[in-house]
Amino acid sequence: MKRFRQYGRSSIDEVAGNGLLHRRALLGRGIMVAGAMGAAGALTSASAEPLSEAPWSLRPGEVTPPYGHPSRFERGVVRTVDNPNNEPSGSRARTPHHMLKGTITPNGLHFTIMHAGIPDIDPAQHKLLIHGMVRQPLVFDLDALSRYRMVTRVGFTECGGNSAPLFSNEPIQADVQALHGLASCAEWAGVPLATLLDEAGVEPGAKWIIAEGADSVHLSRSVPLAKAMDDAMVAMYQNGERIQPGQGYPMRLHLPGYEGNMNVKFLRRIQVTSQPAMTFFESKIYTDPLPNGKNSQFYFVQEVKSFITSPSPGLSLWEPGVYEISGIAYSGNGRIAKVLISADGGKSWGEARLDEPRLPKAFTRFSMVWRWDGGPAILQSRAWDEAGHAQPTREQFVALRGQTSKPPSVRGFPGHHFNAITSWAVNPKGEVRHVYA
Amino acid sequence: MKRFRQYGRSSIDEVAGNGLLHRRALLGRGIMVAGAMGAAGALTSASAEPLSEAPWSLRPGEVTPPYGHPSRFERGVVRTVDNPNNEPSGSRARTPHHMLKGTITPNGLHFTIMHAGIPDIDPAQHKLLIHGMVRQPLVFDLDALSRYRMVTRVGFTECGGNSAPLFSNEPIQADVQALHGLASCAEWAGVPLATLLDEAGVEPGAKWIIAEGADSVHLSRSVPLAKAMDDAMVAMYQNGERIQPGQGYPMRLHLPGYEGNMNVKFLRRIQVTSQPAMTFFESKIYTDPLPNGKNSQFYFVQEVKSFITSPSPGLSLWEPGVYEISGIAYSGNGRIAKVLISADGGKSWGEARLDEPRLPKAFTRFSMVWRWDGGPAILQSRAWDEAGHAQPTREQFVALRGQTSKPPSVRGFPGHHFNAITSWAVNPKGEVRHVYA
Repeated sequence: MKRFRQYGRSSIDEVAGNGLLHRRALLGRGIMVAGAMGAAGALTSASAEPLSEAPWSLRPGEVTPPYGHPSRFERGVVRTVDNPNNEPSGSRARTPHHMLKGTITPNGLHFTIMHAGIPDIDPAQHKLLIHGMVRQPLVFDLDALSRYRMVTRVGFTECGGNSAPLFSNEPIQADVQALHGLASCAEWAGVPLATLLDEAGVEPGAKWIIAEGADSVHLSRSVPLAKAMDDAMVAMYQNGERIQPGQGYPMRLHLPGYEGNMNVKFLRRIQVTSQPAMTFFESKIYTDPLPNGKNSQFYFVQEVKSFITSPSPGLSLWEPGVYEISGIAYSGNGRIAKVLISADGGKSWGEARLDEPRLPKAFTRFSMVWRWDGGPAILQSRAWDEAGHAQPTREQFVALRGQTSKPPSVRGFPGHHFNAITSWAVNPKGEVRHVYA
Repeated sequence: MKRFRQYGRSSIDEVAGNGLLHRRALLGRGIMVAGAMGAAGALTSASAEPLSEAPWSLRPGEVTPPYGHPSRFERGVVRTVDNPNNEPSGSRARTPHHMLKGTITPNGLHFTIMHAGIPDIDPAQHKLLIHGMVRQPLVFDLDALSRYRMVTRVGFTECGGNSAPLFSNEPIQADVQALHGLASCAEWAGVPLATLLDEAGVEPGAKWIIAEGADSVHLSRSVPLAKAMDDAMVAMYQNGERIQPGQGYPMRLHLPGYEGNMNVKFLRRIQVTSQPAMTFFESKIYTDPLPNGKNSQFYFVQEVKSFITSPSPGLSLWEPGVYEISGIAYSGNGRIAKVLISADGGKSWGEARLDEPRLPKAFTRFSMVWRWDGGPAILQSRAWDEAGHAQPTREQFVALRGQTSKPPSVRGFPGHHFNAITSWAVNPKGEVRHVYA
């Protein structure tokens, strides 16, 4: 029942090369656009098929469950788990960005990294201790914390090792979930850490806090006191409900825009100190050798970044015509100011539409209309944040941070804080591949 | 290990009667506040207990699942389902607001009302037809819709019958889930309906659309064309993932701020017309008799409303001291401008803190600090929206809309669009009850 029609390129404003269209190109043009889109099917008057009754329209449906779940037809929309047998090592579960839209990651699909499995914590027995350089050490249980005024804040969390496969000197063929799936975004609610530190009374000379988790590795990280007193939160709720076990139930540290590993889960202790603790994760894991022979350490902010989620590897184009280019941008430095998109590998750029509200240190969804003419294309996105930082090109990034020829492995690749441009190549079959361009 | 201490009232600024405190009262006061809060436990130097090792700190944890779920300790945080055996009638599942924080309702806990169970729709076979007063009828499948530029928008959905038990002339003893649980808030992503109507080409003289669902009752509602062309959306994603079956999988109408029933699920047809269809739900169900003998019909907007979720019935106070008062406000007319809170049944009011961002036609979380002195109190919240509307007092509301002495039943109570003030009475035991005040 579908009729696809093609219109000439001249009928629609192009703002950048290889088919990137003006943001208003498709508004208010009625049937001409329907044809140009090549998407909707025009009905002939003889057709009655669209209103035929499917089986589910002819019988009562199922019972409503107390806790809802996605359709069985969406069972493929899950995180990839790289340690499904719970071997004694870490485990990464990656968010399937290519199958999601909007900016909120549902709790079941928020990425996690566990270093010794997910602990089964009884919230009635869990306590948070604040001690060290304070006038009065304090202990909080969940009842106590529930009496403080909570704040709500949407924020992304990104593993410092997200996108690590892009340190490879050859583009690794993997999808956006494998390449960029260690970043997610949620609405967090909890008590500002500053409130609790004020309660305990921070002593003069204090400059750091050491946050420690109740899991069996007692993961601990040093956080500058300035950050702790700024926008840090002891988060207890994620997207409305209690945070899930994989996210740190019953409470975790939320440090907007900072390296994911520092957002300590199962938070049980905060020690106020004058110096960082040089813990395992900050002295060994998150210390990166640089091309100049020095090391990068205590580099906390997840810098401005963006990537296109659709089209992307695994999401092929099935015929020439108009498609939406859609993706995610974020910055640990604040709001996203601008996202540009190229369909010709960076030769020309058009400005993407940004969905509102653009919240600081949160995912921003960008989109643009693209008419694919059936020829080769290289899609890229590049973001700027309100602090004035530009997402680096790959060339710029490699010059500063280096790349590696070690055997490619999505898991355990060296290097952190990769935030350069990602490139997707579209071939004449409509298939999408990861390339360097 | 806890020591609770009480401080005199004079130590903290009171902004309204019966213990409502200034928003800055508890910031920067250090240990004095810790005592005033009566919440945290101060450690004695002899205490080592807080850092004792719980069982989950001493052994590896569980495997990470592909799709995460809440802790087993949160199994009570579910929707109440009033038709658990799927009898041939409607079914309501209510959101447990008293156990949630923030503004996003997780998908598993978003309220639903089903009229013939949840259909099991194969998305590959589902189609959306746009026809009637259009130049070119069109059919869209999911692939076609995926090619249009999508928008993201946070919005509340509220059943027109939410809070119906408050039409009773005696306060029904029930919790906030039973009284106000037919409202939820999510981030929706989908294609603006205006884009699709533009594609089809709306003909002169058209004033309404009739939206119809693919469930077996083919629920259908008339929507003014002006709303359809304004901010209506064919939503396919909810909080990032595909909307769940109970929410209308694979697509539903999202009409920001309008009566929930009009947000037609399983959307399969939009007919553009010059008149409303006078369907079952608009002619019988959502036509309300008024005290003046007339009827209210085609009353779409869910007016400004608020209620306190904590403390609330079932969430008792366990000792005198300082607590957070927290709740939700929203308006179908736009943003929330202001929320006032009273602890003395409306004699005096203090202004609540509103969490940012305050988005139009979305939940806004409000909070205030309250010192409960152990005496009786009546807690109320009252909201104003940016359009200038005030949430009515119960007296004002009953004068306009009436109340009823019919036997109280949380299910099937007559009356719609209740939005007056809710009152919670706290007794000296700290128990919270629903009252009229």
